[in-house]
Parts: sequence; C-alpha cells; structure tokens
Amino acid sequence: MAYSSLLSFSICFLVLFHGCFAHIDMVTNHHQRQEQQHQCQLQNLNALQPKHRFRSEAGETEFWDQNEQQFQCAGVAFLRHKIQRKGLLLPSFTNAPMLMYIVQGEGIQGAVFPGCAETFQSPSQQSQPRSDHRQHESFPDQHQKIRQLKEGDVIALPAGVSHWIYNNGQSQLVLVALVDVGSNDNQLDENFRKFFLAGNPQEGLVRGGQRQDQSQRQSRSSRGQHQEEEEEEEESQSQQQESDGNNLLSGFDENLLAEVFNIDTRLARKLQNERDNRGAIVRMEHEIQSPEEAEEEQREQRSQEEEEEEDERSEEEREERRRSRGERGSGNGLEETFCTMRLKHRTDSSFADIFNPRGGRITTVNGYNLPILNALQLSAERGVLYNNAIYAPHWNINAHSIVYITRGNGRIQIVSENGDAIFDDRVHEGQVITVPQNHAVLKKAGRQGFEWIAFKTNANAKISQLAGRVSVMRGLPLDVLANSFGISREEAMKLKHNRQEVSVFSPKRGSQQ
Amino acid sequence: MAYSSLLSFSICFLVLFHGCFAHIDMVTNHHQRQEQQHQCQLQNLNALQPKHRFRSEAGETEFWDQNEQQFQCAGVAFLRHKIQRKGLLLPSFTNAPMLMYIVQGEGIQGAVFPGCAETFQSPSQQSQPRSDHRQHESFPDQHQKIRQLKEGDVIALPAGVSHWIYNNGQSQLVLVALVDVGSNDNQLDENFRKFFLAGNPQEGLVRGGQRQDQSQRQSRSSRGQHQEEEEEEEESQSQQQESDGNNLLSGFDENLLAEVFNIDTRLARKLQNERDNRGAIVRMEHEIQSPEEAEEEQREQRSQEEEEEEDERSEEEREERRRSRGERGSGNGLEETFCTMRLKHRTDSSFADIFNPRGGRITTVNGYNLPILNALQLSAERGVLYNNAIYAPHWNINAHSIVYITRGNGRIQIVSENGDAIFDDRVHEGQVITVPQNHAVLKKAGRQGFEWIAFKTNANAKISQLAGRVSVMRGLPLDVLANSFGISREEAMKLKHNRQEVSVFSPKRGSQQ
Amino acid sequence: MAYSSLLSFSICFLVLFHGCFAHIDMVTNHHQRQEQQHQCQLQNLNALQPKHRFRSEAGETEFWDQNEQQFQCAGVAFLRHKIQRKGLLLPSFTNAPMLMYIVQGEGIQGAVFPGCAETFQSPSQQSQPRSDHRQHESFPDQHQKIRQLKEGDVIALPAGVSHWIYNNGQSQLVLVALVDVGSNDNQLDENFRKFFLAGNPQEGLVRGGQRQDQSQRQSRSSRGQHQEEEEEEEESQSQQQESDGNNLLSGFDENLLAEVFNIDTRLARKLQNERDNRGAIVRMEHEIQSPEEAEEEQREQRSQEEEEEEDERSEEEREERRRSRGERGSGNGLEETFCTMRLKHRTDSSFADIFNPRGGRITTVNGYNLPILNALQLSAERGVLYNNAIYAPHWNINAHSIVYITRGNGRIQIVSENGDAIFDDRVHEGQVITVPQNHAVLKKAGRQGFEWIAFKTNANAKISQLAGRVSVMRGLPLDVLANSFGISREEAMKLKHNRQEVSVFSPKRGSQQ
Repeated sequence: MAYSSLLSFSICFLVLFHGCFAHIDMVTNHHQRQEQQHQCQLQNLNALQPKHRFRSEAGETEFWDQNEQQFQCAGVAFLRHKIQRKGLLLPSFTNAPMLMYIVQGEGIQGAVFPGCAETFQSPSQQSQPRSDHRQHESFPDQHQKIRQLKEGDVIALPAGVSHWIYNNGQSQLVLVALVDVGSNDNQLDENFRKFFLAGNPQEGLVRGGQRQDQSQRQSRSSRGQHQEEEEEEEESQSQQQESDGNNLLSGFDENLLAEVFNIDTRLARKLQNERDNRGAIVRMEHEIQSPEEAEEEQREQRSQEEEEEEDERSEEEREERRRSRGERGSGNGLEETFCTMRLKHRTDSSFADIFNPRGGRITTVNGYNLPILNALQLSAERGVLYNNAIYAPHWNINAHSIVYITRGNGRIQIVSENGDAIFDDRVHEGQVITVPQNHAVLKKAGRQGFEWIAFKTNANAKISQLAGRVSVMRGLPLDVLANSFGISREEAMKLKHNRQEVSVFSPKRGSQQ
Repeated sequence: MAYSSLLSFSICFLVLFHGCFAHIDMVTNHHQRQEQQHQCQLQNLNALQPKHRFRSEAGETEFWDQNEQQFQCAGVAFLRHKIQRKGLLLPSFTNAPMLMYIVQGEGIQGAVFPGCAETFQSPSQQSQPRSDHRQHESFPDQHQKIRQLKEGDVIALPAGVSHWIYNNGQSQLVLVALVDVGSNDNQLDENFRKFFLAGNPQEGLVRGGQRQDQSQRQSRSSRGQHQEEEEEEEESQSQQQESDGNNLLSGFDENLLAEVFNIDTRLARKLQNERDNRGAIVRMEHEIQSPEEAEEEQREQRSQEEEEEEDERSEEEREERRRSRGERGSGNGLEETFCTMRLKHRTDSSFADIFNPRGGRITTVNGYNLPILNALQLSAERGVLYNNAIYAPHWNINAHSIVYITRGNGRIQIVSENGDAIFDDRVHEGQVITVPQNHAVLKKAGRQGFEWIAFKTNANAKISQLAGRVSVMRGLPLDVLANSFGISREEAMKLKHNRQEVSVFSPKRGSQQ
Repeated sequence: MAYSSLLSFSICFLVLFHGCFAHIDMVTNHHQRQEQQHQCQLQNLNALQPKHRFRSEAGETEFWDQNEQQFQCAGVAFLRHKIQRKGLLLPSFTNAPMLMYIVQGEGIQGAVFPGCAETFQSPSQQSQPRSDHRQHESFPDQHQKIRQLKEGDVIALPAGVSHWIYNNGQSQLVLVALVDVGSNDNQLDENFRKFFLAGNPQEGLVRGGQRQDQSQRQSRSSRGQHQEEEEEEEESQSQQQESDGNNLLSGFDENLLAEVFNIDTRLARKLQNERDNRGAIVRMEHEIQSPEEAEEEQREQRSQEEEEEEDERSEEEREERRRSRGERGSGNGLEETFCTMRLKHRTDSSFADIFNPRGGRITTVNGYNLPILNALQLSAERGVLYNNAIYAPHWNINAHSIVYITRGNGRIQIVSENGDAIFDDRVHEGQVITVPQNHAVLKKAGRQGFEWIAFKTNANAKISQLAGRVSVMRGLPLDVLANSFGISREEAMKLKHNRQEVSVFSPKRGSQQ
C-alpha cells in the first residue's frame, strides 16, 4: 500500500504539474478566437462613447459600434444597460460568452442552466397576501438560484445560457458588458445576437444595433420600413412595434405552442407578446426579494444565536452554509457541481491583489478566483489610481484589454510595434478604449483619480511590465541593457532599480500631468 | 503515509474536479471551429437533397452542396454512400473529422491508425482453399482491428486516418456522414478533400463535388474538359478516366515507388491505377469475414462451455475477453490504449437516454459514451418520434445540429433571434436541415412517425428546452415569468407545470397536424 | 486509509488515462489555427529563398515572403538571423509562438518571463575589473536564466515573451525560425509583428518585411517615403533612420518615461534610441559569459571532487544540481515550475529517435520531450539522410510541415488529394518548402546526403507512412489491398512485406536518382 500511495502520489504530482503547467504557462492554447479574418491595422485609436440607444419601459440599453476597428480587431461587442428601480431585464441569452460589471446600484440576477435543479423557493411568495394564493401553497414556486448583485461585482455568463436581472435597489442599476463574439463558443458569425425568451424588444436591440445586411432586407421588403427606424440614434420603443413579436416563442405556430405547453391557444398567443411595447426592460409589479432579504425574514422567526455575524459574511459563505443545512428542495445530484458554480466575483478594495497606499490598487478576476472564466476564456482587471498615480507601462502578453472608465479621468498612451503612439489622450468616465495584445500601454491618473474596469480576452491574461520591481528590465542582464540602449552600466543600473514599486507607481513629488 | 495518501487524494480530487468542470460545464472551449469567416445570415432555410452523385462499380456516393448557406455557416460537408453487396469503399482518409451513421444494412470497417499493431489475423485466410496458400501459412496475414457495423451504428473517424468499409450483409449498405471541415483538426482550407490510397476515383469525388476554383482550372487547362463533366448531376464513372490516376501513389515517380516498396516497376505502375474505372466503391472478389463470423468458426472447433452465451454479448465485451485471452500477435504496448479506442456506438432502442412510451425516444452519442468524440468535438442524437409526438422546443446551447431524416416525416420549425421562423415545413426521409446554434427548434412527427439522426458540432452538445419538466420556464421565478410575458401568476404557473414530460412529448388527444 | 489510497489511485489512473488519451490520441483538438480564411489551393509549390534582407551592425535578418501561398495556407512566417561574433540580437518579442533552430555556431539566449525571479547572478560582473565596480558589489546584477545554445538546438518561445541572443562563439551564429502567426495565441491579425524593447531597428524589420497596407500609408503620408525604401531587397540600416525610434519606449512621452523609471529626462530620451542606426543586431562591448564558463571559473576556486565528470553532463542535469544546491538568490516560489521550464532540446545524433546505419536518422522534438511545445502547439523534426537514402513516403496527419534544408540536397515529391504531384524537384541548402497537411511526401537524398529541419504546426505531429514496417499497407487486410489496387494476393503480400525498414530506407544497390 505504501507503494500504491506513493505511486498515486507521484502520478498525481505529474498530473498536478501538468495542470500547473497548463494553467500557469505563458500561453494558453485554449483560447479560441474568431477575429482572425479581421485586420488589426490600428493606426489611430479613439476613446469611444456608445452609438446606439434603445429605450425601454424601465430603462435603456446602449451599444457601442461593433464596426469600430478596435472592436473588430478584438472580436468583441460592448454594451451598457441602465435599469431603473423595479425594472426587469427580460430573460434572454446571447450567442457568445459575456462578462458584466456593475458600475452602479444593486440588483438580483438569475441564470437558468439546463439540467440544473430548481434549488430556490421563491421568496416572492411571501410578499403576496397569503389568502390570495392559498391554492398554491401546496405547490410553492421553485426556481433556479438567484444572486444579489452590487456595485463592483463582475458577473460571468456562458453563451446560450439565459438570464434576467432585476433592480431591487434604491437607485438606477448601471452595468456594462463585454460580449466575446470572437469566442469559439460562438459558432455563428461574429455578429452580436440576443435571443429573448419573452417580451417584444426592438429588433435593433436583438442585433446590438447592427443593421441586417442588404440582401436580407430586400428579401424582407415588407418589413423594410421598420428597419430603417431601428438605426436611429434615439429610438422610442413605441415606434418599434411590428405585427409579429421578437421573442423566441413568437416564431412558433400558436397551435403548436398551445399543444407543447398544454395550454389554451389564447394564452399561447399571449406568450408571443406581439403588441408588447415595453422593450427589453420592463417594470415589475411585485418586487422580487433578494436571497439575503428572504433569509433575513426567516431569521426573525428562528433562534438568532448562530446567525449573529452573518451580515458580515460574503454571499459565498452563506451559500456554503445553506448547502450544508440542506435547505434545498429535491435535486438531481448535479446541483453540487456546475449548477452551483460561482458566476460572480467582488472587486471591492478588500479583494485587491496589488495595493500601494500612495498609488492605488488593482484587482484581478480570472480563472483562478472565478473558475468559470476558464471555460469562458475571459477575465477582468479592476483598477483604481489615486490622483496623479501611474499604472506601470506594460504589454498584455496573451489578451486584448477592453477598458471602460468607471470614474475620474486620466491619460492613456498606447504604443504599437513600430514605436508609434497609436493612442495618446485623456479619457474620462463612460468611455471605452481597446488596448490590443502586445501593444505597450501606460495609464496616468488625473487630479481626481482614475478608475476603470478592463475586460481581457483570456481566462488568465498576463502582463509584462516595462518598469518597476517585477519588470522585464529586471530580468535582463546589465550588459544586455547597456548595449541595447547604448547607455552606460550605471545608467542601466538606474533603469533596473530606481523604481522599486510594483504595478502601481506613486507620483513623483510635485508631478503634474 | 497517511498524510501522503490524504494529500494525494486531495490533489486528485482537485484534478478530478477540474476534469469534471472541464467536461460538464456549459461551454466547452475546446471546440475549435473555422467557420468564422462565414456569415450566418440565414433568412430562409431549406431541407436539402444531395446535389452531386458519383457512380462506382459497386455503389454510389452522393454529396450535398457545400456552398449551401446552412453548411457554410455550420462549416460542414455532408455525404451519403450506398455500397452494394460485396462492395468495398476504397481505403481513404479525409482532411477533417467525420461522424457516420449506418442508415441501412451491415458492413465491416477497418481504420488504420499509424503506430498501432496489426492485432487481427485475417479470417479471410481460412476462407480460401488451404492448399492454394500453403506458402503463406508460415506468414499469415495480419492487419489492424476491424469492426462489424450494422444499422443504427454511429462511427467516428479522426482527420487523416484512413479507413475502408466492406458490405458483408445481404442488402445495400447505406451510410450518411458529416465531415466537419470547419474543425481545427483541418488545417487546410474548408474545402472537403478525400485522399484515396488506391484506385482511381472520379476527380469530383475527391473534392466532394466541388469545382476547383477558376484560377486553378486555367492553370490546368489541358484537363479542363474533364472538370466540366464532373459537375453533372449524374456521372458515369467511365467518362472520368484520365491519363493519370487519382490515388495518392499515382503522383509519385514509378521508379521511386518501386524502390520504396522494393518491388518491380511493373507492379509500381499497377499501384497508380491509371486505367482503373471502377470508381470509389469496387466489387470484392473474395468476401472478408467479420470478426464475429471468424470467431464463430473457431468456436466450432473448440469446447463450447465458456462461450454459450456469447451471442448475447456486445462486441465490446468480446473484445475485452479476446484481450485478456492474449489472442493477439506481437504488439507494441500501445495497443491497449488509443489503438483500441472505440470508434462505434449503437443507437438501438436499448441504448435510449430518454424514453416516453407514448412519445418516442432520444439516444445521444457524445464524449461521455464514445470518448473519441472529445477529440473530434462532434456528437450525435438519434431521435424516434411516434405518430404526432413532439420533440420539446429547445435551442442548442453550444453547437449546430445537422439533421438527416432517416424515416417518416414531420414538421420542423426553426426560429431566429428576432422571432422569425426561418424554417417551417414538412421534411421527409433523405432530407438534411441545419438547426443553427442558439436558434429555437420544434419537431412534430407526422402520422407515420418521424426518425432522424442529428450530428452536432460539439462533443458534449447541450440543449435548453423551452417547455416540459426540465425547461427554462421551470428555472425562472413565477414573478419573472408573469411580468416578462405580461400574464397573470396563474397563467405563469400553467406555463411551468402543465407539461410534465421531458424532451419527448406525447400528442394531445385527437391532435392532428 | 487503504481505501483512500486505492481510491486515490483509481481516480488518478482515470485522470492519467484521460491525460494519455488527450495526449496520444490521433487528433489533438487543442491546436488553434487562424489560417482558415486562406485558401490552400496549392497547384504548384516552389522551394523558396528569403525575400527581404535587413542589415544590422553585427549581422543580418532575412524574411521569407509571407504572401507566398504556401505560408498563407500554413499560417506561418519564416525568418533567418545571421549574428556575427559578439553580436547581440536586441531584446524583443513577437506576436506569435516561435520555434527556432540553430543552423550554425553558438550563442547565449535569455528569455524574460513576467513574474519569474532573477535567478542568475550575472557572470559578467566578474569579467570586469573588480575595482571599477566596488560600489555595486553590495548590489550584484541579477537577471533571469540564460541558456547556452549550439548548432542543432531547437528553441521554443511563447508569444509576447521577450528574449535576446548573443553570439559568444568563434563563428557566425545562424538560426532559422518559424513564427506561427496562425496560432490562436496571436489574437491580432496574421501579420508578423516584432516588438523591440530597445534600439531602433528598421521599420520593415518589425513587420517581417511586410509593407503596411495602403490605407495606413496614406494616413501617415509624412512618413511615406521611408516605407518605400523598406521594401528594397537589400537595405542599409543607415537609410532607415527616422526622427522617432522604433522601440516600444519611443512611443511614450519622455517626461512620463522619466517619471515611470524615476530617472532624468535626458536618460529617458536615450531609451528611445531615436538616432540609433545599429539595426536589430548590435555589437556588444563586453562579452557575456555563458553559464558553463561562469561555472567553470567558479570551479577552479572550489574543491574539484564532486565536479569531475560535469563536462559530460547535459545542461539539464547541471541545472538540476544547481537547483538542489540552492545556489540561487531569493525567489518567489514559482521558479521551480514554469519559470524553469525547458525551452531547448538538442537534436544531436545521440538524441535520434529513428536510426538506420545504412539510411540516416530522424529526431523529433515534440510535446513529450519538450513540454512547453504543448502550449505552443508546434514541434520539429530533424532529418539526416545519407547518400541516396529515402525517407518513407508518408502524410502528416494533423499538421503542416515547413521544411528548411540545412545541408546537402535531395529530391522531394509532394502529392495532393487528386493524385497530382504539386511539387517534384531537387531542393538544396537554404531553401524552404511547405508540405501541407494530409498531402503525401517522399524525400530522397542526393549523393552528398540530405539534411533538414521540419517545423510542424502541432505539438504532437503524427505521420502515417505509406511503405515500410509501420505503414498503412501493413494495417490493411491482404484482400482489401489486392482488390483496391486490382492486384493479386501475392503482389499485395510484396507491398506489405518487401520493405522491412522503418521511416528511413536504405537505397537500393546501385540506385541512382
């Protein structure tokens, strides 16, 4: 047995090492991208604002222009939802993996993974007058897991998995999302596509503001006029209504739908939402309770001993406890594995990976701390620079970086292979700029500080820094440095050692941009 | 040691979990597809019949049109072989992974994996009069493993691996095959290419009926006339003969071939098959015995005790026994691993994954039950619907689905992201229709029932159902459903619970299409 | 515990088996390639010489034409560096994985992996007069690992990882490199891009000799004249100088650079190397000591006991000992894993995988003996044929093969799917020819023998041989062979058994080409 366990250990070690190798190595060969047909001849980048806006009953959705060279090169689409209080983003899925960031507000998200059990009893049951729904009490509503979201959360969503978001906070919920249409999980073409399960969103909205191509429009001449309107910069939802709905059910025959759901044809017709003009974000009549609130209510009816410090615990811990308590309904055995996979990671200051009290902090969300990202091949970096601080110049080794400015402003320089600055400008809140793979980039905060969320097209995106304590200069021999730059060994020594900070550099005394 | 095994256990668990994660998760990022340059602007799909037909001595080969939008979008080619009794499909390989389904008949398949040992002694030796071949008895023919195929089998074949098929049954052998030219295992362009090791098949046949592009044709003007003819709907093999052969050996210098094989030049010239007009499927003079028959013969000469119930055992079990008996010849040690990897899976009713006695059955062949598919990134779904039954409306989360109707007829509806039905028609035996990724689809059998084989472009293709017990409706909270569709909570309850069946729905009483 | 270790063992075995499966199987689905949009309509291949040459102070760099059909189909770029004695190839990285082969000479290579510790104390410290650098002795120069290279070495380098090469030998150092721009690790377009950390190399050099496309040139009209000159077949480095430098630092603002490195602006300006006209390969003033030489020196000052047979040990073994001795400086714990990953493999005759004393030898460098290649998805094959010997005709199952002739000459025939020889010619030293995936190829040495290095676009490239002891003919049943070629069983027997050698065939007596 000693032999057996030793052997197993060694084998394991091999496997583990292999695992390490696969995970840690410089290059991940798992990331499959489709942007290959695009040229990345980026001579002049611009910081971009959204181009298309679609208003809904309880919010609006904005799309950046997919045809912009920088998005084409990176193979991504970018969008922003603004969901008003009590607004519900309708259940839908996209044709590509998505990474979201909550810029502002709070909300509840539910994602529906096929084959997973309905592990949550709806707390909304109790918010209704009990007498009205007596008939349902023997049959309580169950559904899949829901998550409470708040500012600073990163949420991952695989292609083809439907989800909804409800704003249960006190202010507007603002979220930005990167859709990796260049991912190999998207086997369709690289156009953004959103499939709504319900409602009747504007047709431009299901295609990310993209116009259908000419050939299509002609083959659908009877609907041509409507499409014209979809491209307007500002669209009212009332103009958008067509005779047939835009959700997935509206394409099916209503009699078949009735048979399939075992309902009457009248209800089947309702599901097609043909005359719905609420858009993609609708107002909820009844509020949905967040898991925390529901638990809170329960708690009042139970002994309070074991729960005193619960408020301070993270949602993850609570889930852990909930799991071990066995509070859930009947399951299929899979709910302990991928069905409970975390989709969310916080980027609060308490989660910072790099912190410099005189410079700022960097938090990374990647395949190590949010494992689902290994499948999605996306990651994120949350950056906060204090006034005039600098993020070390670096290049992204294995990813593009799509940066959304969440607060403040700063100066960004991006340098291409021939030493030209293809971007050198001040950027401010609400703008998006793409830093292409391997291009060098330098960020310097303005006087009010500078904050951003960067989405990266690799689950374990790596950077190589040009200055500071973990920089490439440190890895080069003194003589190589001196001869390469044609400088003295003393000067080369300064290059290697004068800046001892890592990633986030404090400003020089009296430095002004 | 306790520590060591505990540690090893934990490490293993990590690794295993990682493995599970990788396998079970919603999105597999391993599937590499090339179809990215294609547009998937599918406004109107059609159910398709084959376009090109090539007759051979003992059968015919039909190709669907690779230029059809739906195949371009999915990055696949589709073909059908009809092999007459005693017909042999010549040894050949394709430039992309292939998944085949035996629609009718029986046959023997042999695949030749480089580096694998010749583990089968040819049973055909004994079917010859022994006296004729005395001289060979000290040197019996050995070759790689062969497999008995029959109706309902799914067979997988990697790119670049040569195989042959022989019809040893009593009727025609009909098989359909999906060639995943968009796979990353194909590093050439997305044109179908078949490389024959022997014979002289029509030139159109080696390119899947595709015309070589204009530029090529001009650079080869001396052969232009022949190519014209290849495009005819019906081609006789006699017209196709050219001065040089179309097999891989015919391009080599005959003197070099003679030297390489250490044979005389006359035989080398024979290998180039320049005047062979039998096409791709030739008549075998001597029958090849199937492994089962050969074993049968042997058994008669041995004690029958341990073999009584052998007939009932699956081929796999027999192989197991054969292995443990050590019946094979000299090996290279690898033959226990990938050399004996299963290429075949049955889809008989006894293998059904989902069964509804009033509706029909679904059998899936994927990376879990046929592990080679994890490498090929293809899977299959065999569906049988009884009269008027319905396959639950659903969307394919991570794959395209290319459906070949094997029997009966039915109605199929396919809905795109903007709620339009891009296909709504009756389909019948012999037609092919592509269901693009993420598009919703509904199948309803006609009165004679409806059977199909669907090939999917992912080793673990997943569907998300819109109705029934494991549907997305079940996973959504009641309030989200009610508010999304603008219906009452009672109506939403019906949507979630009125249809309790899974995947295969029985028809409503008196339902007629 | 017995149970636990048994279980762990079984689980491990499963995992390991899975690993084996994944590694050994015929098709690797990990290789992501981008060349899909290219057509591989290769009717006539040519053996190619380099097209662009860039002279530097201490050497020159030559690029093959990226627009050649065969490179476009394979999705690769090909280049050759000639580094004079004491020449230093400036630190730089490329946008794609690279595989290099040392054709001639010796050198030192350093690669800088971000996050890895500086594990080498520079030996060059001691070669300086000690009194000069007293002030640094308390702060000795440390840098990342360096490697001694010599003729016959294969070196792998991931995309985005910077490296430098110094010729410390007595003759010119010549190396050829394949850059896999079609790799998925390159998320930019398929153009070759080289990013220099220092110096001011010609602009054509950073783009592999490619002209920037027309649209770019117009948007940069002020620099148009220079670009014209870059395309000249022979370029002097003096013409190339522009007002701004071509290294990564030259695009940043010099004041920001000064702040970032905490140096004065004068030195920051020096880093941009605007007036540097030395090109990409510069002359080193001080020599860099190889790790071996440094150790040699040390040894003289230590007891010699344990080191007597060190000369005979491979570099790898020495590293092993060095590691266990703990000679290194402070580390970050990662240096034992991917930071010490081997980048180099020898292809000396002592490493041959296949050897035939009358034919020659084949050495393969792949994911098994150089594990980093599993991440890069590249491999190499070193071939040496004696006079008139033959490399068995075969096809590459899962890779393209890009062949550089290192010595002698020979005849190569390449056959496409329709049996045409798309290449049939003599090739000689310095030429490159691509053998496309699945196409059959035959090599026969001339009278002076024939040597090559073949780079393959798969970490575990596999070939399937047409003749010899492990050929596809051996795997086919005699009857299938006889009927396919229309020959007798006796002739088929000859085909299977007349050539008993593996891969490398001795010439027939008196065989002349």
